[in-house]
Amino acid sequence: MPCIRLTLEYDGRAFAGWQVQRGGVRSVQGALEDALAAITGERVRVIGAGRTDAGVHAEGQVASAPVASELSPQVLYKALNAHLGPDLVVLRAEAAPDGFHALRDARAKLYRYAVWNGEDRSPLRSARFWHVPAPLDVSAMRQAATALVGRHDFASLQTTGSSVTSTVRTISRLELEGEARGEIRLWVQGDGFLRRMVRGLAGTLVEVGLGRRSQDGMAALLAARDRSRAGLSAPAHGLTLVRVEY
Amino acid sequence: MPCIRLTLEYDGRAFAGWQVQRGGVRSVQGALEDALAAITGERVRVIGAGRTDAGVHAEGQVASAPVASELSPQVLYKALNAHLGPDLVVLRAEAAPDGFHALRDARAKLYRYAVWNGEDRSPLRSARFWHVPAPLDVSAMRQAATALVGRHDFASLQTTGSSVTSTVRTISRLELEGEARGEIRLWVQGDGFLRRMVRGLAGTLVEVGLGRRSQDGMAALLAARDRSRAGLSAPAHGLTLVRVEY
Repeated sequence: MPCIRLTLEYDGRAFAGWQVQRGGVRSVQGALEDALAAITGERVRVIGAGRTDAGVHAEGQVASAPVASELSPQVLYKALNAHLGPDLVVLRAEAAPDGFHALRDARAKLYRYAVWNGEDRSPLRSARFWHVPAPLDVSAMRQAATALVGRHDFASLQTTGSSVTSTVRTISRLELEGEARGEIRLWVQGDGFLRRMVRGLAGTLVEVGLGRRSQDGMAALLAARDRSRAGLSAPAHGLTLVRVEY
Repeated sequence: MPCIRLTLEYDGRAFAGWQVQRGGVRSVQGALEDALAAITGERVRVIGAGRTDAGVHAEGQVASAPVASELSPQVLYKALNAHLGPDLVVLRAEAAPDGFHALRDARAKLYRYAVWNGEDRSPLRSARFWHVPAPLDVSAMRQAATALVGRHDFASLQTTGSSVTSTVRTISRLELEGEARGEIRLWVQGDGFLRRMVRGLAGTLVEVGLGRRSQDGMAALLAARDRSRAGLSAPAHGLTLVRVEY
């Protein structure tokens, strides 16, 4: 079956997340499946590299779909963008090898979590930044982050109730950009992420930055394999899926 | 009469512009006057350094108001932010000299106009960037911009129907940041601006970038003193009032 690979940008505020859900809420997957069905006359399952939660944005999400249609990727790209609303766009459509699977075949994903550390709320940043008004100690956050890089069991950072076979993942990059009282960006790259792991990680590092948690406690936190030991999940609107590598 | 000076950030999409208008539409000036009245019990006129149009954003608008109240600037700052909605924030409130007038006393204003020059629409940029899909020749735009710097009669770039005594203004800085197929930012600083002048200027330079207008025609355009000779007014949502100097 010929397969198509789509690169997507979307504003997470417009969707109840990636995944199709019951109850007719708007999902990215659903919007793409509906558009493909309208164009090709055929309903197929679209697979996303990251199942982003409600409110999470994407600059470079990747999706795959088996498309029997004889339409070229370029024609599908134009037709999809004509069907999709202003909140979701196909940046690229390419023919993919038979059996290409956007989730299973992904080698690495890069996320960015954005924090606005100004004292006042910022109307122009409110859609993309988590507002943390108290001053953050960014160097303590950097120090804590180093213990999370590498291959670890991240069970302490996944949402309770998830069921995956292994909770071991590798974080290859974890960098903090910026200083206190300004825009702070956390870049996280890894081979895969547990449910809400990046948001748990951002919430935990912010607690370190606020002095509510020791910068040296990360190894013990991971060893505990207990979600209740980590920080709160940072809000969805600060998170963006930047890129997926294959 | 004691005077207060406010520095403001707002999301232009939430307002029908700076100025109070008939018909009960929401304006920045009206929101501030209502909040001050609720706090001090006294209705005063708030003056803005720039009368931003509907849809134009501000990161550093400055406003002045005569406030007879004995509340300190710090108390007013907290009370105002408690009253204002999520789209408007007071970043600073300071005591100003008697008779301080945010518009008349402004020495310079800095605006930024943002263009998204990608082929596809960008859901994550749509609130802050004007989408120009065809490739722009940024070096031609830069070349054209140089002729606009300095003291000139900008009658060709003001909205028809304005009535100001003089249409001579000085642009001290006009810089283009970025390259084709990406984010392009036009920075414009001057001692004052005619109605919709920055948007007329951005629209005209984009026409140069698209090759629809010669990069050498700016001097003749200014000499004509005729609005119909300039480019279309660029959309409001790409414009941000960055800073006002006194």
